Amino acid sequence: MRKKKIVIALGHDALGTTLPEQKEATMRTAGAVADLIEDDYRVVITHSNGPQVGMIHAAMSEFAKLHPEYTSTPMSVCSAMSQGYIGYDLQNAIRTELLNRGVYKTVSTVLTQVTADPYDDAFYHPSKVIGRLLTKEEAEAEELKGNHVTEVEGGFRRIVSAPKPLDIIELDAIKALIEADQVVIASGGGGIPVLVQDNTLKGAGAVIEKDLAAGRLADLVDADMLVILTGVEKVCLNFGKENEQQIDRMSVEKAKEYIAEGQFEEGTMLPKIQAAIEYIGDSAVRNVLITKLDKSREAMDGFTGTLIHK
Amino acid sequence: MRKKKIVIALGHDALGTTLPEQKEATMRTAGAVADLIEDDYRVVITHSNGPQVGMIHAAMSEFAKLHPEYTSTPMSVCSAMSQGYIGYDLQNAIRTELLNRGVYKTVSTVLTQVTADPYDDAFYHPSKVIGRLLTKEEAEAEELKGNHVTEVEGGFRRIVSAPKPLDIIELDAIKALIEADQVVIASGGGGIPVLVQDNTLKGAGAVIEKDLAAGRLADLVDADMLVILTGVEKVCLNFGKENEQQIDRMSVEKAKEYIAEGQFEEGTMLPKIQAAIEYIGDSAVRNVLITKLDKSREAMDGFTGTLIHK
Repeated sequence: MRKKKIVIALGHDALGTTLPEQKEATMRTAGAVADLIEDDYRVVITHSNGPQVGMIHAAMSEFAKLHPEYTSTPMSVCSAMSQGYIGYDLQNAIRTELLNRGVYKTVSTVLTQVTADPYDDAFYHPSKVIGRLLTKEEAEAEELKGNHVTEVEGGFRRIVSAPKPLDIIELDAIKALIEADQVVIASGGGGIPVLVQDNTLKGAGAVIEKDLAAGRLADLVDADMLVILTGVEKVCLNFGKENEQQIDRMSVEKAKEYIAEGQFEEGTMLPKIQAAIEYIGDSAVRNVLITKLDKSREAMDGFTGTLIHK
Repeated sequence: MRKKKIVIALGHDALGTTLPEQKEATMRTAGAVADLIEDDYRVVITHSNGPQVGMIHAAMSEFAKLHPEYTSTPMSVCSAMSQGYIGYDLQNAIRTELLNRGVYKTVSTVLTQVTADPYDDAFYHPSKVIGRLLTKEEAEAEELKGNHVTEVEGGFRRIVSAPKPLDIIELDAIKALIEADQVVIASGGGGIPVLVQDNTLKGAGAVIEKDLAAGRLADLVDADMLVILTGVEKVCLNFGKENEQQIDRMSVEKAKEYIAEGQFEEGTMLPKIQAAIEYIGDSAVRNVLITKLDKSREAMDGFTGTLIHK
């Protein structure tokens, strides 16, 4: 029987913020991922990169300010760096976890670019929060540099555009590694955002919405399932309110109704549900499972999590 | 007939130092690489990362100093970031060049770790220069942090250990992509230096000698040829002296004699020749070609460059 193919999307909980946090978080994450690999799924992993790309972008910007012989580093280059940085910790944590279980399998990271539409509305409405908390002075300095900021609890943070993912440039490389029955980490942080200009790819000053990118990845590799591991065990209606209600199963149609009701928060649950809807499309085979990292095995067995289907 | 497999090793000339330089240099480099792909070789590309990893390491260190909530970034993590950064420019430049010639082929970058021996003598004698020129004050500050520096023309520069490469952790991923007839960029900067501790890989505060890593890569993927593109058209005897003499062909045995005579400069030509000797070993099939970037096609046709053989 053909092995089932799943794409696992890891969020902030799976990676943490700082370097030591990431090292520790990826070790915990590796347990959940290894469970699924041991269950004999072909696994493709994708992940967020908000704090990491923010840290790199801030470091490179400040460095360029101090050392004028260096130019500033575009967001797309910072995104490429963050894929290297996160992939390194993540693939090693998974490799170690697999070896500890006696499983020998190559785990690798493929640098991944994802194209966006230059006319994507997101370019006119930056919305994605990145990097660390800024003081008012720092926020004003960012705005002077042409960057966008937004006020948050306790200060300010930078925001960038989050266009929709279209194509994955390195798709055939990812597919070749899946075919070779290896574990692949791809499209980290939603992929390096690029715009197509004739035969050239131009880095975009943006961050691809990573949940949508995960859905696109799952679609393009024709995965049987997309597993989104996040901070909640189940998707909820009336989230955080007195009449909060957990969802066990939800059809695409129902999901669309809930979106219309404004049930899912922008920037957190909404893009996950949107990704699910787009990935499943009209398929009776494809499913999306949303749950917490440490519940992934239980959820795969149907005991918890929210399952989205046609 | 089986397509021949070659590993191309790119040096500093192929990449430049700063961000805009790298963008421009990789476009020139892509021409040379595309020539060989068009000639129907299976191509694996590896590259140096000296200035790039130095820039990233300096930026991350200064950032951690300014923002104590961030810890400093180990050399191995900086190396992972540099593979993302360089791979991004390099794979895009090659992709564009191939598309301009009507060749459709996936070019991707695989994050690569290379193991070193923890008892490698190099760990006791740091020798590899990285990063930008430092003032005396900056050099002293580096030494206080436990880093090593060396005096060079016009100031100081940091130095790190350059241990020998042993194994490539992601070898099977690289091989799967070669088998799929794709172009792979791997083991950038000599690979992320790691030490094996039971089932875990520990990042080493070092830089793997990239020419030796290229030789090891060529050996492990069983390439037919290793092409080292560097700053000189041919390897020379009595380099830079009045009686300088270019070498057209050289046997491994002869190369060893020249090394014993002290003909090749440490840190530049010597590791290239050593890489050639180790890669060729006892094989009558494997060859190493050393030449300048813009002479690669002529050299492949036998009209220039230095060919090293059994």
